[in-house]
Amino acid sequence: MDYQKILEEIAEEVKPLLHKGKVADYIPALSEVDPEHFAFSITLSDGTQYHVGDSQTLFSIQSISKVFTFILSLKAYGTHMYDRIGVEPSGNPFNSLVQLEYEHGKPRNPFINAGAVNVTDALVSHYGSCEITISEVLRFIRSIADDESIDFSDRVAASEMEHGFRNMALANLMKSFNNFDNCVEEVVKTYFKHCAIEMNTDMLSRAMLFLSNYGKDPINGKTYITPQQVKRVNAVMLTCGHYDASGDFAFHVGLPGKSGVGGGIVAVIPDVMGIAVWSPGLNAQGNSLVGTKALELFTTKTGLSIF
Amino acid sequence: MDYQKILEEIAEEVKPLLHKGKVADYIPALSEVDPEHFAFSITLSDGTQYHVGDSQTLFSIQSISKVFTFILSLKAYGTHMYDRIGVEPSGNPFNSLVQLEYEHGKPRNPFINAGAVNVTDALVSHYGSCEITISEVLRFIRSIADDESIDFSDRVAASEMEHGFRNMALANLMKSFNNFDNCVEEVVKTYFKHCAIEMNTDMLSRAMLFLSNYGKDPINGKTYITPQQVKRVNAVMLTCGHYDASGDFAFHVGLPGKSGVGGGIVAVIPDVMGIAVWSPGLNAQGNSLVGTKALELFTTKTGLSIF
Amino acid sequence: MDYQKILEEIAEEVKPLLHKGKVADYIPALSEVDPEHFAFSITLSDGTQYHVGDSQTLFSIQSISKVFTFILSLKAYGTHMYDRIGVEPSGNPFNSLVQLEYEHGKPRNPFINAGAVNVTDALVSHYGSCEITISEVLRFIRSIADDESIDFSDRVAASEMEHGFRNMALANLMKSFNNFDNCVEEVVKTYFKHCAIEMNTDMLSRAMLFLSNYGKDPINGKTYITPQQVKRVNAVMLTCGHYDASGDFAFHVGLPGKSGVGGGIVAVIPDVMGIAVWSPGLNAQGNSLVGTKALELFTTKTGLSIF
Amino acid sequence: MDYQKILEEIAEEVKPLLHKGKVADYIPALSEVDPEHFAFSITLSDGTQYHVGDSQTLFSIQSISKVFTFILSLKAYGTHMYDRIGVEPSGNPFNSLVQLEYEHGKPRNPFINAGAVNVTDALVSHYGSCEITISEVLRFIRSIADDESIDFSDRVAASEMEHGFRNMALANLMKSFNNFDNCVEEVVKTYFKHCAIEMNTDMLSRAMLFLSNYGKDPINGKTYITPQQVKRVNAVMLTCGHYDASGDFAFHVGLPGKSGVGGGIVAVIPDVMGIAVWSPGLNAQGNSLVGTKALELFTTKTGLSIF
Repeated sequence: MDYQKILEEIAEEVKPLLHKGKVADYIPALSEVDPEHFAFSITLSDGTQYHVGDSQTLFSIQSISKVFTFILSLKAYGTHMYDRIGVEPSGNPFNSLVQLEYEHGKPRNPFINAGAVNVTDALVSHYGSCEITISEVLRFIRSIADDESIDFSDRVAASEMEHGFRNMALANLMKSFNNFDNCVEEVVKTYFKHCAIEMNTDMLSRAMLFLSNYGKDPINGKTYITPQQVKRVNAVMLTCGHYDASGDFAFHVGLPGKSGVGGGIVAVIPDVMGIAVWSPGLNAQGNSLVGTKALELFTTKTGLSIF
Repeated sequence: MDYQKILEEIAEEVKPLLHKGKVADYIPALSEVDPEHFAFSITLSDGTQYHVGDSQTLFSIQSISKVFTFILSLKAYGTHMYDRIGVEPSGNPFNSLVQLEYEHGKPRNPFINAGAVNVTDALVSHYGSCEITISEVLRFIRSIADDESIDFSDRVAASEMEHGFRNMALANLMKSFNNFDNCVEEVVKTYFKHCAIEMNTDMLSRAMLFLSNYGKDPINGKTYITPQQVKRVNAVMLTCGHYDASGDFAFHVGLPGKSGVGGGIVAVIPDVMGIAVWSPGLNAQGNSLVGTKALELFTTKTGLSIF
Repeated sequence: MDYQKILEEIAEEVKPLLHKGKVADYIPALSEVDPEHFAFSITLSDGTQYHVGDSQTLFSIQSISKVFTFILSLKAYGTHMYDRIGVEPSGNPFNSLVQLEYEHGKPRNPFINAGAVNVTDALVSHYGSCEITISEVLRFIRSIADDESIDFSDRVAASEMEHGFRNMALANLMKSFNNFDNCVEEVVKTYFKHCAIEMNTDMLSRAMLFLSNYGKDPINGKTYITPQQVKRVNAVMLTCGHYDASGDFAFHVGLPGKSGVGGGIVAVIPDVMGIAVWSPGLNAQGNSLVGTKALELFTTKTGLSIF
Repeated sequence: MDYQKILEEIAEEVKPLLHKGKVADYIPALSEVDPEHFAFSITLSDGTQYHVGDSQTLFSIQSISKVFTFILSLKAYGTHMYDRIGVEPSGNPFNSLVQLEYEHGKPRNPFINAGAVNVTDALVSHYGSCEITISEVLRFIRSIADDESIDFSDRVAASEMEHGFRNMALANLMKSFNNFDNCVEEVVKTYFKHCAIEMNTDMLSRAMLFLSNYGKDPINGKTYITPQQVKRVNAVMLTCGHYDASGDFAFHVGLPGKSGVGGGIVAVIPDVMGIAVWSPGLNAQGNSLVGTKALELFTTKTGLSIF
């Protein structure tokens, strides 16, 4: 298949949509991003990479980091992790407290905010401190992306913290149900740090490769997680990866994926490739408007959905 | 792959679990079923069929019928169908009114009760009467299962209707929001009729074949729906096919599937096969306990998940 | 106190507000009413009556009838009635299904729709038929209002039934929880009949007299309910009489009262008087905008709140 | 009326119930209290006081303090206070986040936890610091109770803070909706301090006197709030004073009142008296079981309900 041609077609077709989305504006660091950006990268199992657009431009990966912390928590705790968090779609906005209260402080899944903050708390317990946690998260991401330059933005993390009252509410609510181990404020800060990690689509598509290959990176040969765990991470991405538009994403794109409010989306085609797309304008559900459309075009043009 | 051997291994391994589930007991017709039943059938694209257990014994397909009516509604209305129903997981029990009220009478997806009753209402509008609707549903199922003997049980349908007050409530609520066309009572009766259709796992695995083959039945050569529509039906089965255990099913089994309270589950492996399993004992979420476990064993043993 | 002067002052002061409310428009029979109407009647314990405005004009009492049916159910069942319905404010709109589902089909109180339909169902069980029920309700109201001409409007009742799907939903939901005895449709019809009873403010203020006098009508000398029951009916009117604006009504008016969507409000000053006010324009919570204001002015001018 | 005899009868009649309630056990300081305690005090408008039981024993007033802080906030902000909090019953448990989220961070009323924390925040803004706030609260209570010895327990306040994660969650959630001015942690600490104020029933019945007398203390002659404000405070106590058992309290007791988890309840009979009762065992809704019963007996025996 001529992937390069397909990517270029897509870049052309989505152009008229680049102004339709709305860049996240709850913190200055995100609202300043130019909505015209577009990037689409794929990395095949043999390491071949195709890309179009601003695939070298770093952006805030935000909730995409939840995939990586969830994987680290599975490595640390195995199936015991599911005592703390579920794997069901929530059917509610990403930051809702309602369900968390009805369900006694156990978050529905690792990709809603409550779940991801809980995962960070579990990692802090495992690694022993917030400092070690954030450096282990970085170490893992640098390894799977094969890029030692990756880091988080202090400015974005600090800015998030200034507006992080709802995440503080979620964490306090979990703590009131005894489903939270450490200092709420410190864990939420650590959570915002890994959300503030900056990558580009080339790095991200490369980083997803082990998830398309049963947990083993086909290039560096390292095994990160078991095939069983990969199957489960991909299943959770498919059912819960896009907040309350997860069904819509499965329906239109048909791939396991995870979006971030910075406009990035990662996805996986098992046995074939890792994918990353970026466009900062968001749709009403908080997912990249153009990114979602571009992925739908990609699966339609290539016929490469999992269904 | 030696499918027959795998099916027999599974039948052996699940035996100790056959008493763990709880047969549906809200109507006599279902509660009388022997919980010891177990059947597992697969039909490959070339028509080869493997089965183990009571694969010739008819059972009430119940909510599995929702897959077939949803498909008929897509054939009748195309994407206009999504004006009436959504495609998001609900995160709530299958028969909840809460979400339906908050979302102004538009059901989350076609597989929760409200959605399926709405689909039946749409079919009644399309076909012009309840009588024609139920015969068209039967005609379609007989065609995809290649079995003219398939019919519904009058006794089960009548018994359901006697206890169908919650479905009447759901339908009246949708009608109060102007998202329902016809007489509530007549449509609910029709809905219970298609839920009372009786099939066995051989028939059901055969009937799923076109969903594993881009909408075209590889045996009789008929094209039922487009590849695009297949992708979407399968996506909705994956994200919404098992009520509020849909995430769990994706997580453990990793296949698009749909369960019924009669203990049946159908599933699809794209490009490979249609699957049906049956065991009447249900788990806490109302899905076949042994059926779910058998499917998990099947994807583990064959490595044939979609992820 | 010069009640007549106070009523006339109030009539003058509320005039500029008569266009601010919105007449109920969900059925033609209600939407046709002239929003300019205003009436305020009080009946003292010695039978003296003061009134201002259209106090002879009949209007649809709607939910005010719930006070009378609740009283009849207390006479029939005593405290056993509280096995079927609660006495707590709902904190939700009058016709919400959410709470009813969470609380397993037991309505919060007799004045939300679910509770009132449940009360009607209890009366039908007690009297043996819908026909006897509606005639007993009329007989009771004619007695307390001392007016044999009172009747319901067939046209309004029929029109309500055509748009009564939400009440059908509520009743079916209660029936699914085994908290409903009779045919849903027949009971809902009977409910709409007593809602369609037509009275004027003179009649209504007279009818409330026994509730200001420990259950005994001070004029005809009949004892309708016990002092204990009066205390409780008045308490439920205070906490639940105005849907999710009940707190606001207690806060501003400070009297036990009950409103109807036809624009009427009844209220009671223990030991002193029965009150009825009417103005068809409603506020955002579905209570008479001018009626509420007029009552607030009345308690402010007379100093006669219960607090 | 022979109040002393009535109080003694009540003390006798409730004895068998003293073990039925459950002492609050979420913090040690409260769980250690002897469940056998019982006290009932009334203070008439002329200052005459009647009491029975342990009316000199101090206990933690807990949520009763919310009445006093609400009054201070009305003095500080007048009706502007209702921009921040409502006056409707919540229909939900006292510490629920669900409603607060649906209603965008505006608490239903000043007596649920979110509302009371919000009131404390408003007072901190008004007085300029947490320190001044707590001393002003104490100054006010000492004045209305005519007792300079009243203080809060450091130990109880500190212990509450250790388990105060849910209140931290509520405050953070309000802050995320911009309905909270100051540092969450400092305000919650101040809130716990005023909840930890210790009084006995003699003090509390004395302190309620101005609320039974149009805002003017009939003994010291001081006017604390306007008659209008008294009417409204009493209305909110009646509709919201006992969490989701407020309707039940109005129904059985028929008086404006406010309970605390320490087992105290205060109530008011307009024009007649202030009331306080104490018994540490709580019913399922978190209100004093014996206290509620004793008040019901009191209004039944004296005929002194407001209805």
